[in-house]
Amino acid sequence: MAEIQKKSVLVIGAGSVGAIAALNLHVGGLASVTVALRSNYDVVNEQGYTIESCDHGTLKGFRPSVVRKGIPDLVAEGLPLYDYIVVCTKSISDLSPTTLELINPALPEDNTQTTIVLLQNGLNIEKPFFEAHPQTVVLSGVSLIGSAEPTSGRIVQNEPDRLLIGAFPHPTIKDEVANARAREFVTLYSASGKTDCKFSPEVLRDRWRKLVYNACFNPICAIAGIDSGRLRLADGGLDGLIRPAMKEIVAAAKAVANVDLEDDVVEKVIATDPLESWAKPSMQQDLEKGNFIEFENLIGEPLRAGSQAGVPMPTLEVLYQLARVIQWRTKEARGLVTVP
Amino acid sequence: MAEIQKKSVLVIGAGSVGAIAALNLHVGGLASVTVALRSNYDVVNEQGYTIESCDHGTLKGFRPSVVRKGIPDLVAEGLPLYDYIVVCTKSISDLSPTTLELINPALPEDNTQTTIVLLQNGLNIEKPFFEAHPQTVVLSGVSLIGSAEPTSGRIVQNEPDRLLIGAFPHPTIKDEVANARAREFVTLYSASGKTDCKFSPEVLRDRWRKLVYNACFNPICAIAGIDSGRLRLADGGLDGLIRPAMKEIVAAAKAVANVDLEDDVVEKVIATDPLESWAKPSMQQDLEKGNFIEFENLIGEPLRAGSQAGVPMPTLEVLYQLARVIQWRTKEARGLVTVP
Repeated sequence: MAEIQKKSVLVIGAGSVGAIAALNLHVGGLASVTVALRSNYDVVNEQGYTIESCDHGTLKGFRPSVVRKGIPDLVAEGLPLYDYIVVCTKSISDLSPTTLELINPALPEDNTQTTIVLLQNGLNIEKPFFEAHPQTVVLSGVSLIGSAEPTSGRIVQNEPDRLLIGAFPHPTIKDEVANARAREFVTLYSASGKTDCKFSPEVLRDRWRKLVYNACFNPICAIAGIDSGRLRLADGGLDGLIRPAMKEIVAAAKAVANVDLEDDVVEKVIATDPLESWAKPSMQQDLEKGNFIEFENLIGEPLRAGSQAGVPMPTLEVLYQLARVIQWRTKEARGLVTVP
Repeated sequence: MAEIQKKSVLVIGAGSVGAIAALNLHVGGLASVTVALRSNYDVVNEQGYTIESCDHGTLKGFRPSVVRKGIPDLVAEGLPLYDYIVVCTKSISDLSPTTLELINPALPEDNTQTTIVLLQNGLNIEKPFFEAHPQTVVLSGVSLIGSAEPTSGRIVQNEPDRLLIGAFPHPTIKDEVANARAREFVTLYSASGKTDCKFSPEVLRDRWRKLVYNACFNPICAIAGIDSGRLRLADGGLDGLIRPAMKEIVAAAKAVANVDLEDDVVEKVIATDPLESWAKPSMQQDLEKGNFIEFENLIGEPLRAGSQAGVPMPTLEVLYQLARVIQWRTKEARGLVTVP
């Protein structure tokens, strides 16, 4: 068998989601994987990852091809271009560095070789890349994995890795070019045989569909300080908050992107979340840890797009404004703003 | 000088507001004051109140005429009717005992002698009394005092006791009868010469005016976990939340009660609250202490009344639903609801 020319993949932000992506791409054998780490670098560099995965089993000391601290500066370090940069960080676009600023050193200008894969939630995350790197294909990754990093470098994945990959509609790059990259990435990602990774031609539909959960359960649970199971039992949780918010997202999906979600999508999404799991959505977890929340792409962008398209979104509006205040509190706690 | 026939006054809930009311009525000399205590009974019974008051100075060991545990049961104890029952508890109408249930033992039926004085915030607090005690005059007390009980039995009053007293418009009792009681109570309360207590013929206006602050700063600060000074600095605090919420209350006041608040009431109320005080509204304090919040009369009643009168109140609606969820959390923490 001839040696396969592996694709070079840089995974940025290899925490709970990114570490499984790195592992899966590595196991598939079609990619040479570099992980660029920040907070968990020391642990992973010394001991490798400890992974308990429903897809991959238990691994101690897993290391992809390269473990490095921070984003490589290709020009300064004289490194070749990566074929794929998979971004698994939170998308916190109201703070520096933005995702674009973060990965810029690994993405020299006028780059047609590298493909960006944004494995992040929310709307309009591709827009900054379209402006700064108009030659670069940007793929959407909508992940339905259940995974956590309870301690640094230890990854517990308890729900299967399901991933929808597609190309964001691009103003100048042709669909067939972008779609070919998406299909190639699906091939790399599926090579392990352990995941459910699919090409999706309906990126915007996938994203709006996921927002039905993410733009609603995330902020409501975070703001009210209640897990998603209890929220379904609490006075006003479903009828007063979740259902009105979800209906606003469904209406915005139609008005903004002509996306027709299923008639029963609201009840289906509510039912997806098992009552007895008492799961805390990621935004609630982030808030409890004192971390910033990714509210601009999850709530702000759908709200702005929907409002501009004439959809009344009063519930999302108030949740968004409360999230802004809460983010400001975290900024104060981190010393980014000061009070007199 | 002939001996004055003192009026008998029962003060219920003699914490930060009630203790100052009891002290002030006692000092005035026209009332024989009984305080009915719960949580701070042991301390006050043994040592009296320790009071640091901008109106009354510093007092150690203050006791009104009678200090008793719990509400007197007049029939069972063979006690005479009180002339006034001054209620200073929080109004948490979604939980038992309600204010009505609480004071019922001190208020036998068909009572024309006793006057109820509700020194509580919010809307429609008088309604349960109108139904259960249709012969009884109910007065409204709108207090602008600044007072706290940092430890049990220790009262720190740092803003003057300003009190507006008037009669709630009653379906059957004549205005002149009710107003005479209100004016008499103002006389009792003003006798100390240390407070600014006024008769007000515009009870509903007073209540809606106070709601401009209370229905807005209270839930927003409580829900977002931010004091009122910081809220004014935070992204979205004023323009995204406070101003929209206040405008909804102003519109509801007009539609529900034909109350015309001043054109600049929103900015005036915002400016009233000194920026550098970093004060936490009472609802935020209650939440931080793990206490129930009085959201039904502060938010729910104005919201229901306004919505019924056709006023769009989207901001108050979401704040109300979040407050319901938060109250449910406290119920769970107190064992009043259980999850499977």
